[in-house]
Amino acid sequence: MKKSLKNLRSLRRIKIVVQYVGTNYAGWQIQPNQKTIQGEIENAIFLALHEKCEVVGSGRTDAGVHALAQVAHFDTTSKIKAEKICYVLNEYLPRDISILESEEVSDKFNARFSAKKKTYQYNFYVSKIPLPCFAENYAHVPFDFDILKAQSVLDEFIGEHNFAAFCSSGSKVDLKDAVRTIYSLKIWQTDKQTYRMEVSGNGFLYNMVRIIAGTLIEVGCGKINPKKIKSIIKSKNRKHAGKTAPACGLTLKEVDYTARIRKKKAA
Amino acid sequence: MKKSLKNLRSLRRIKIVVQYVGTNYAGWQIQPNQKTIQGEIENAIFLALHEKCEVVGSGRTDAGVHALAQVAHFDTTSKIKAEKICYVLNEYLPRDISILESEEVSDKFNARFSAKKKTYQYNFYVSKIPLPCFAENYAHVPFDFDILKAQSVLDEFIGEHNFAAFCSSGSKVDLKDAVRTIYSLKIWQTDKQTYRMEVSGNGFLYNMVRIIAGTLIEVGCGKINPKKIKSIIKSKNRKHAGKTAPACGLTLKEVDYTARIRKKKAA
Repeated sequence: MKKSLKNLRSLRRIKIVVQYVGTNYAGWQIQPNQKTIQGEIENAIFLALHEKCEVVGSGRTDAGVHALAQVAHFDTTSKIKAEKICYVLNEYLPRDISILESEEVSDKFNARFSAKKKTYQYNFYVSKIPLPCFAENYAHVPFDFDILKAQSVLDEFIGEHNFAAFCSSGSKVDLKDAVRTIYSLKIWQTDKQTYRMEVSGNGFLYNMVRIIAGTLIEVGCGKINPKKIKSIIKSKNRKHAGKTAPACGLTLKEVDYTARIRKKKAA
Repeated sequence: MKKSLKNLRSLRRIKIVVQYVGTNYAGWQIQPNQKTIQGEIENAIFLALHEKCEVVGSGRTDAGVHALAQVAHFDTTSKIKAEKICYVLNEYLPRDISILESEEVSDKFNARFSAKKKTYQYNFYVSKIPLPCFAENYAHVPFDFDILKAQSVLDEFIGEHNFAAFCSSGSKVDLKDAVRTIYSLKIWQTDKQTYRMEVSGNGFLYNMVRIIAGTLIEVGCGKINPKKIKSIIKSKNRKHAGKTAPACGLTLKEVDYTARIRKKKAA
């Protein structure tokens, strides 16, 4: 879309924080003839601010994946107070998408490229029978699960590694570009039958969080030997890691733009 | 339905434990032209066991209310092993209703009249903006909430009281029949913005749990003076208690048929 010089001068960059339930969407990114989160937000901006804007997210989330606080930005000529834009957009958004905050930021801020750290949650429940109360936000694990076994391998993932073994083959990422840093990885029991994995890193490959979750679940279920995790990472071969855990268990929890990450000191 | 003597002799009473998401249902109890939990289960029994059976629940849950473990019973002539009936029925139930267990019980067992203790959870979140990730299972509280204030009044509810002030006026219960015993009442923060109330008692009046939840929320939000709770209970007047909190926050957690309740000893 052409913008006059005058418009360009008055363009403001708005950062938004978005919460959504991904169940009914084909993911974040706009696709033809599909309901997407990005598409719904761009539509709300068009209806509320009468502008066609491209909304840039911190990253794409897959179909069925949720977000507690996805971050995105867009540029607008609207004169509405930045802090009020979230309320205006929410009027035009469906019930399963909500803008939690909006603020004006420098045009050097980029929701995708300025992100320093991302945190994901992966929820699952353990039960022989599928449990309706957990169907939307939890993966179903129908086997016995030993949390101590899963916890015993967490340290292997921490730090900088080539995570090619934890990247879906559909991805276009070069094997050499598969180096990522995981800052923290935890897994704990949240209630009688429910568990949560939480992982923070400087970025994640395609399906990487779901494959780590699937691998930890298989370790806890006795299907992957805990001693093999180190060699699975080193193999850089997707075939050796666990299954990709289902999308419904995954939630983008936080995107951090300020984090100064402490480097591990030698002991 | 008429049953021959032979059939009567071979009737077995089956106890089932049911989990459901109440969002898309007009409540537990069968009603004409409405989707109900009881209706779906009776339909599944008809399709799976080729019998018309009445399913008796421990109590009705309202439209939109969920259950982690509702209990019910029905009588059947089916020869299928009692423990397998849950799997057979689940084949015919929608995704948001699931039978967790089935077992044969004495015909003296009655899911409604044998219940000794019920436990409900009430979930809510505190945020100025509605949060999609909590829309299905949490009530939305758009005001500041002080958990310590809410916790300061819990003891007033414990024990045997006439809870007429906490019974919706639509109920047919006589004022004199409004005496119930609350065994425990707790409220705590479950995550950054989420809270849970849990209450156990020998039985609950119509909307009683939701009115207690609404009252505790109003105490925490500074709308009801904590010192007034005692007189609100004593008033037996519905007008003095807080609002009925929304159905979506309520979950029937457990029905206990064995509990020997310790009576409070005089100090």
